[in-house]
Amino acid sequence: MSAMASEPRTHREVRLLRPIAGAMREHDFGVVTVQTRAPGEGEVEVENQFLSVDPWMRESAEVGQAMIPEHLVFRPGRPLLGAAVGRVVASRDPAVAPGQLVQSMLGFRERFTAPADEVQVIDQDGLPARLFLGVLGVTGLTAWVGIRLGEVRAGDTVFVSAASGAVGSIACQLAVQRGARVIASAGGAEKGAFVRTLGVDAVIDHRREPDLRAALAAVAPEGLDVYFDNVGGRHLAAAVDATRPEARIVLCGKLSTYDPAEDEAPDLGLAIPRSLRFVGFSVRRHLHELDAFRRELGDLVRDGRIHAPDTIEDGLDAAPRALMRVLSGDKLGKMLVRVG
Amino acid sequence: MSAMASEPRTHREVRLLRPIAGAMREHDFGVVTVQTRAPGEGEVEVENQFLSVDPWMRESAEVGQAMIPEHLVFRPGRPLLGAAVGRVVASRDPAVAPGQLVQSMLGFRERFTAPADEVQVIDQDGLPARLFLGVLGVTGLTAWVGIRLGEVRAGDTVFVSAASGAVGSIACQLAVQRGARVIASAGGAEKGAFVRTLGVDAVIDHRREPDLRAALAAVAPEGLDVYFDNVGGRHLAAAVDATRPEARIVLCGKLSTYDPAEDEAPDLGLAIPRSLRFVGFSVRRHLHELDAFRRELGDLVRDGRIHAPDTIEDGLDAAPRALMRVLSGDKLGKMLVRVG
Repeated sequence: MSAMASEPRTHREVRLLRPIAGAMREHDFGVVTVQTRAPGEGEVEVENQFLSVDPWMRESAEVGQAMIPEHLVFRPGRPLLGAAVGRVVASRDPAVAPGQLVQSMLGFRERFTAPADEVQVIDQDGLPARLFLGVLGVTGLTAWVGIRLGEVRAGDTVFVSAASGAVGSIACQLAVQRGARVIASAGGAEKGAFVRTLGVDAVIDHRREPDLRAALAAVAPEGLDVYFDNVGGRHLAAAVDATRPEARIVLCGKLSTYDPAEDEAPDLGLAIPRSLRFVGFSVRRHLHELDAFRRELGDLVRDGRIHAPDTIEDGLDAAPRALMRVLSGDKLGKMLVRVG
Repeated sequence: MSAMASEPRTHREVRLLRPIAGAMREHDFGVVTVQTRAPGEGEVEVENQFLSVDPWMRESAEVGQAMIPEHLVFRPGRPLLGAAVGRVVASRDPAVAPGQLVQSMLGFRERFTAPADEVQVIDQDGLPARLFLGVLGVTGLTAWVGIRLGEVRAGDTVFVSAASGAVGSIACQLAVQRGARVIASAGGAEKGAFVRTLGVDAVIDHRREPDLRAALAAVAPEGLDVYFDNVGGRHLAAAVDATRPEARIVLCGKLSTYDPAEDEAPDLGLAIPRSLRFVGFSVRRHLHELDAFRRELGDLVRDGRIHAPDTIEDGLDAAPRALMRVLSGDKLGKMLVRVG
């Protein structure tokens, strides 16, 4: 427990200015200055350092579209929510000490005061704080759970879409580590070049491939054992057609299905003759595995055997732009905002 | 080994008379008389007793539609194939003795001569021969594998479509045995009454329910943990909508999707937020489990704890009609033809 600051103080936070109708735009959001409350009994005050900007936030602002918990839905007049890591600057709870690194869902603000049970202390172990939002955070956990649910085995042919993205780039590396042959899909030459550095065996540039089925047949003539789906739409439809018997299709994300031109349905009729398994999952049901996951991946990250790509915007004012970049795919790896 | 019959003999077999275009009709098939060949070294001669008539046979006659192995596709001029049980009448292989009951895929004929490795000896153990095509045959195995893949647990709410059918009626009983609450869908009052005798908790008459979603909501307001899908189409779409988080959808059959009016696609977009699993399977990949399955179910069947409903047509000439009855759903439980 530390002494409390007593002078009135302020911090800034990102808010949704109006309900979103249709596509989300940068100017739907604004940064406002609010008063910082001193922590009461059982509370902590935290200075955020990095904010996580994630694809699920699109749904979070679209009224009526939300598949996400109500408390995460962005509402005009209250601060946005999202994963963040920060440093404890004051604590009135014995379980949390000033100076500790903590994670929370209280992102999109420079500073917050909250009950201590809304933050989780991170055993930083000499690693950069931002990694606990990316490769060692819920993003990495998502890739790790998905690869496990896909039962990726040595010798499997694994196809990963959005392979230059936060989850996809880690999924590729975890599949390579398991001894799989990995085919990655990414849009454009720059992303393709980046994905090649992850050790994958083949890259499909989906912007230049009108026919994904032909592209898959060219690089995986024997078919797919696993498809790690981060986008849905035509990728999912083509991948299902390309499956081998007993293939696993991991349904992890569906970015593209917001685009009607991409809205192609997979042929579920193949599921029976090919004994296919479609495994959807929401990482929210796996958050209790975060510690086990960090124990397993920490050393791999420290040794550089798993790369931790990220794209960083600086300052809270850049948060709405960072969100736009996530939704348009204009970034490599994990999108972060540095506020500390 | 037994003495061979030496006089020329004949038997009858069902053939497809012409390639099928569109819906299969009874008069597309005919019964012809052919010569019975005496078994050579390593061969057996078998008199069939019961023939299994199954939904997959529809695909087997539709050129270009076949999801089934090439050797099972019905072709004009050669006898149809299908599961059968029969009695060995002559053997020139030491592993098979005259008088033994055997199963084979050489149905749709009164008698056949084939290499001994094309038949499997059945340990009949006092049970009626026909059960080894139904509840103790591949039909029962299909239900058993599906219930296992669906991970049906005590307390689960399980929905089974085509519940009066060969697979569905057994799936219902296996789910009840596991302590699940079972909701069954069947078409019409007669089938509904039959399904109630299987111990299910609620029956939906899909012929009288224009809105399956409302019907499911009425009997399972908390949602479904498992859906055992034998039909696809609007049942599958409604069941997916009605799932609870972490539900399993077992894709076992898709009878209804031959009917365009039934061709409604399920909302795969629910798979991620609800962590749904879709498990397709073809029982052909599980035939090696037949013995283990029979050991587990044999006593339950003998004790009457699993009912073994069937519908029997008499004589080989009735086989095409029996096939039409399977495809139109005009029967209860397993459809068999008695030829012995």
